This record gives sequence, structure tokens and C-alpha cells, in this order.
Amino acid sequence: MVDVAIIGAGQTKYGNHPSGLKGMWAEAAKNAFESVDKNFHPSKIDEAFIGSVAFGGSQLGNTAALLTEHSAMKGVPVRRVENACASSGFALRDAWMAIKSGQADIVVAGGIEKMNDLTPERKRFWLGVSGDTEWERLAGLTFPGTYALMARRYFHEFDSTHDDLVHISVKNHMHGLDNEVAHIRKNVSFEKAKNGFMVADPLTLYDCCPTSDGASCVILAADHVVKEFTDDPVWMLSSGAASDNLALHDRPSITQLVATQNAAKKAYNMAGIKPSDVDFAEVHDCFTIAELLATEDLGFAQRGKGGEFSRLGMGRRNEGDICINPSGGLKSKGHPLGATGTGQAVEVFKQLKGTVESSRIVRDAEIGITHNVGGSGATCAVHVFGRDRNV
Amino acid sequence: MVDVAIIGAGQTKYGNHPSGLKGMWAEAAKNAFESVDKNFHPSKIDEAFIGSVAFGGSQLGNTAALLTEHSAMKGVPVRRVENACASSGFALRDAWMAIKSGQADIVVAGGIEKMNDLTPERKRFWLGVSGDTEWERLAGLTFPGTYALMARRYFHEFDSTHDDLVHISVKNHMHGLDNEVAHIRKNVSFEKAKNGFMVADPLTLYDCCPTSDGASCVILAADHVVKEFTDDPVWMLSSGAASDNLALHDRPSITQLVATQNAAKKAYNMAGIKPSDVDFAEVHDCFTIAELLATEDLGFAQRGKGGEFSRLGMGRRNEGDICINPSGGLKSKGHPLGATGTGQAVEVFKQLKGTVESSRIVRDAEIGITHNVGGSGATCAVHVFGRDRNV
Repeated sequence: MVDVAIIGAGQTKYGNHPSGLKGMWAEAAKNAFESVDKNFHPSKIDEAFIGSVAFGGSQLGNTAALLTEHSAMKGVPVRRVENACASSGFALRDAWMAIKSGQADIVVAGGIEKMNDLTPERKRFWLGVSGDTEWERLAGLTFPGTYALMARRYFHEFDSTHDDLVHISVKNHMHGLDNEVAHIRKNVSFEKAKNGFMVADPLTLYDCCPTSDGASCVILAADHVVKEFTDDPVWMLSSGAASDNLALHDRPSITQLVATQNAAKKAYNMAGIKPSDVDFAEVHDCFTIAELLATEDLGFAQRGKGGEFSRLGMGRRNEGDICINPSGGLKSKGHPLGATGTGQAVEVFKQLKGTVESSRIVRDAEIGITHNVGGSGATCAVHVFGRDRNV
Repeated sequence: MVDVAIIGAGQTKYGNHPSGLKGMWAEAAKNAFESVDKNFHPSKIDEAFIGSVAFGGSQLGNTAALLTEHSAMKGVPVRRVENACASSGFALRDAWMAIKSGQADIVVAGGIEKMNDLTPERKRFWLGVSGDTEWERLAGLTFPGTYALMARRYFHEFDSTHDDLVHISVKNHMHGLDNEVAHIRKNVSFEKAKNGFMVADPLTLYDCCPTSDGASCVILAADHVVKEFTDDPVWMLSSGAASDNLALHDRPSITQLVATQNAAKKAYNMAGIKPSDVDFAEVHDCFTIAELLATEDLGFAQRGKGGEFSRLGMGRRNEGDICINPSGGLKSKGHPLGATGTGQAVEVFKQLKGTVESSRIVRDAEIGITHNVGGSGATCAVHVFGRDRNV
């Protein structure tokens, strides 16, 4: 079986990006190409997978071929992968399988979203349509509302209050402060986050990720060609993925995401690791409650102990056993839907290579994971990365 | 390297389908499940890839998880693959690679489109957006217009007239007449097709495929599990894919599709066959001129001889060396965008298993191919299938 490494990764700054879709993608791809240590040229790419949710919501279509044409990859077999907010997490999984299949040696996985070009109405549509439509969206439930229901239920079932979510917001803003590609770079005090503008009770503005533009791009290589491009790759040790019901009422519990649990189980088993082996995790915190639940579903805290985990600051960089969202996560780094999954992998690549801003480095990190969720848990992809090829 | 077989395949009837998206998909999946000779249960599925273009154009989203949930596949890792009209051709490629990667033994590839739910305006948008937008669609060029330009240029460069296209239309309507899943089942005379309502000079109504609803589903299996399900599989011998410029003016020639040529070359090489080894081909005839060009690009006729090929009836079932579009093709069987690629594979499966209507069977067929194009040639996937595991 072929092993797979990341040899390059790059992205745009997340936020309100001045470029159009083609420009954003070209920028992310160029940054990825230039991050390869040696000998790289886009003509060496065998296959490409590009994640995007709302691309068809803009005027442009045939996304995949359009973007490869405008980033020196014309001719490469390419397709768009769409899986709501987990689009590029699955693009990455598919790229990894393409290499493992023996059909390709160098594969690009990327993602892109231009949210700020959409009218408020279309933005609401493209966000809402990722959840359940028939029972939730058309009845008026928005995404903040969906996660607010989860939070309320969590507080009801377990020893936790909104304060635990506030700690997550404060931590992620702190982590993202020095991240040059982050959307929102500012320190947020506990009081400010606690008393933020109410979006969907109990979630305030500081519990919700921003609406970001952005593109991200990762270059994967088969083990037998890695040495041509770098002596210091990051290995993609495993990929786990799963799906679940879209609507909350179809799930036995709304305080856990079964898709996350199943995806993580597969990814850990394949990589031969336990949750306690993970040094840092890029986690899908579209809302602070999502990070809290993920902390449990990924096995970093016991069930019902996610609140305490947050309260005690156990996910803070270089303080506890694990760093949760060293990039700042979706809350601070931003959430350009289709770009988020491979954007997480960009952070992992840079952390494990030691090329992030020095103030942001997770010390002695050997193993990092990414966790990318589609909808309110309908799909999930978890990937494990390591400095070493074998754990 | 793992070999890959189709063990089951099914679809809805194409046309104006009475069911919604979930019902259509469930019907196609059920037909595929029931077509497996023995021991199949959807709980055995490891991974799924579902192609769709305009799904987000409807009210529903998070397509992939939504559809697997409603077809007894909940939990399976799944994503939507979007590549304009080649969406499920690429879903099939990705499913094939998933098995070759060793990560999955049973994989579903499918496609779906509900065109007739869209308003005329949205229908025009979702069709048009698959081509180039900035230079073509927004300047008023429609898809029939795009292919009309190719046809006019072809007549200018080579010994051919519109009559050659008429022959293709007549042939495909004849082939589809007894196809129970075809959208348009009627014999069309040469005179009628020649004098049809003008759509985009020189293309008449009879040169253009209809606007169809439909869903299709194919079940792939790894060689080491095939025997559990059937003693008579159809082997997917190879997959080739490529991309090209979106806009016609960026291509050196508009009377050939380089993406088709490159995809075919890769697929033939990998399968170890020549074009003359192909017994029948399901070809992407969104317009009759597209089939004529494909006949050349796939190597069945020499360059410039596609008109003569058609004129002499060389693609008619059981008349020449090869049968082009035994199903009736997009012209007669129909073209539910995202469903077309795997729908072609359904036909190949049934032809090679000998389970099509007896009047439609391609006699002594050993090797069939599918050819699925996205946009006006921006992407293409070509797959080779055989009754035998090795050619």
C-alpha cells in the first residue's frame, strides 16, 4: 500500500477577500506550489479535487475545470467535491485515496468559497441548505438556531453553562491573534464574549464563526516520489469519514455527533493511535458548542466533561496535553465553507513543519488531526497527520 | 493492484419523473441493489459517490448524506461529485479509485438530476453555467449555440453537411425505441429530423437532447469479494479523465475535444485495447454534433471522417463493427445531467450481462466504453468495461 505525504500547502488570507474566485484560487495554489521545498512544477500534478459549497450560487460554473485552467493545471483530471462545510475535508480524503489507488503520484486537494459576493438572501440559502431543509430550514430554523438547541440540551444534560463556551471563544481568538491568514485577529475578553450580541440563545456573536471568503490548497505525494520534492514531508497517516441523519430529530442524541465519533474511530485505528497521542487538533468550531462536542466526540474529554475541559483551559496552546485549534479555528481564522477542510490541513502542515509564526507554534508536536463537519453533523471527515511515516 | 467489477446497476426511467429527489434516488438505488445476483445488502457498502449538477438549485442541500440516508445507506462515507454534465462519470472514476486504494470493497457510484422542478430561468442558468460564463454565457451564447458553432465549423473544414447529423438523430431514436428507461421512445424519420424546429442553426430540435429527470446507481466491488455476489460480473478495466479550457476561443480547434482524446488515450492504454476492440460505446451526444466529434476523438473514425461514418450507418446496432449509443444515447434515452455518466454504465452493465431488452442487445459484445463530457468539453471521463477481467 502506498503511503501519502503532504509536500506543500498554501492558502489565501481568510476574510473579505478582494479577488474573485479565480484570483483567490490562483493565489492559494501559488502559495502551495511555492511551499514545496524543491523541484515542484504544476505540470507534475496527476489529479485534483476541489471542494466548494456555493460555487454554483455565483455566476460562474464548471468550477473544477475553471479553477485548474486558471492555476497552471489545465488538462489535469479534476472535479468539484461538495459536502456542505465538509467539502474539502472530503476532497482531501479523495485525493489521499487517489494516491493510494496507484493511479496518481501527485494530487492536489483544495477548497474555495466566496461568501461575500452573495446577496444576504443567497448567503442565508447556501448556509441553511447544508442542514435539513424539510423539517428545519423551511420551518425557520437557522444554523445558529440548530447549534443553540444542541447547547441548551447539553447544559440540561451535563454540568455546563454558557461560560464554558465563552472560554472556547476566548481561547480561539487568542490562538488566532498572530495568525497572518486569520479573518478576525483580536483578543476578546471573557466579559466581552459573554455579553456579546445575542444571535440564538444561548449563542452570542462570539460563539459564531464569521462569514469568510478564502481558498486553500494542499499537495499530496506518493511515498516513492516524496524525496524528489522534500526531505521533510508531513505524512497523512489515515483518513476516516462517516455520515449521519441530516435532521436533529432523527438522531438519538443531539449532544454528540455520531458521524464525528465514527470518522475519528476509523482514522485513529488506521493510524494506530489513541486520542491521547494527538498533540493538536484543528476542530470544526462553526459554533463554540460544536468545539465542545467535538472535544468529547474525538475522545479528548470524556462524555459530559467537555465543559470542564474548556473551563480548565485544557485546549490552550502549550498549556495542556493537547492544543485545540492552534490556528484560531473557524471562530478566529474564519470559515469559508468549502475551503475550511483543506485550510485545516494547511495549518497542520505548517505546524508540523514548524513554519507557522513562531508565537503560534505548538511545541514538540508530532501528531495533528483535522476534523471537518458537513451540515450539523450529517457528514464528517477526520484525518491524522504525523511528522513520522509510522507511529 | 485490486481489480474492480460492477456487480449491480439500476436506474429510474428518464423523463419527467413524478417523484422528488429522494424518491428518485431511492428507486435507482433499489433497482441497483436488486440487480445483484446474490447476497447483497446495502449495509455492505463502504463508500459512496453521488454526482449531481443542479442539486443546490432545488430547495434541498447536503445532497450526498440526504440521499444515502434515504436509501438504506446511512452512515456510509459519502460526498457529492460535481463536474457539470460529467458529474457521475467522475463519481464513477472516484469510486473505482476508492476500491483500488484498498480502503473499500463495495462502493456505490451514482448520479441524479431533477430538471423539471426548476423554473425555466433556473434551468437555463444551470445548463448555461456549465460552459464558460464570462465570454460565452453572459454574452448570450447558449449550449445549443456553442455546439452549433462547432457544427458550422466542422462543415466548413470537412466533407460533411447537416444530413450527417440527421443520421445520428435517426439512429439514436431507433436504438432507444425499445429501451424501457428511455425518455423519448419514437421512431423519427430522416425527413422529420432534417426539417425539425430550428434551435440554433444548423441544429434543429432533433439534434438536441431532451431535458430529463433521472437517477442512476452502480455498485462496484473489489476482485476478492466479487464471487460473494455474482459469478457473472462486468469488469471496469480502466478509467481515463482529462480537462481542458472552458471557452471555445481558448482552444486551438473547436472541431475536436482534446479532453475526450486524452481521456480515451489513457483509458485505452490502461485497458490494453485499441479503439477497434470496442464493441459498443455509450457516447455523450448532448447534441448530434457532439456524437460526430466523439466518434473521431474516441478513434472510431479518422479525423474528418465522422460525417461519412454517420452517413454510412457505421454506428448502427449490429450493422457495423461498433454500435454507438445502443441505449439511444442522450438524444433518446435522455440527459438528466448528473445522472448521465453512471446511467451510461448501467447500460454497459446490462448489455454485457445480456439483460437489456432482447431487441436491443449488441450481439457478441465483449468490450463496451462510456464517454461522459462536462460543459462543452472542459472535462471528460472515459471508462472501459469488459466481460473478461483481462483483455
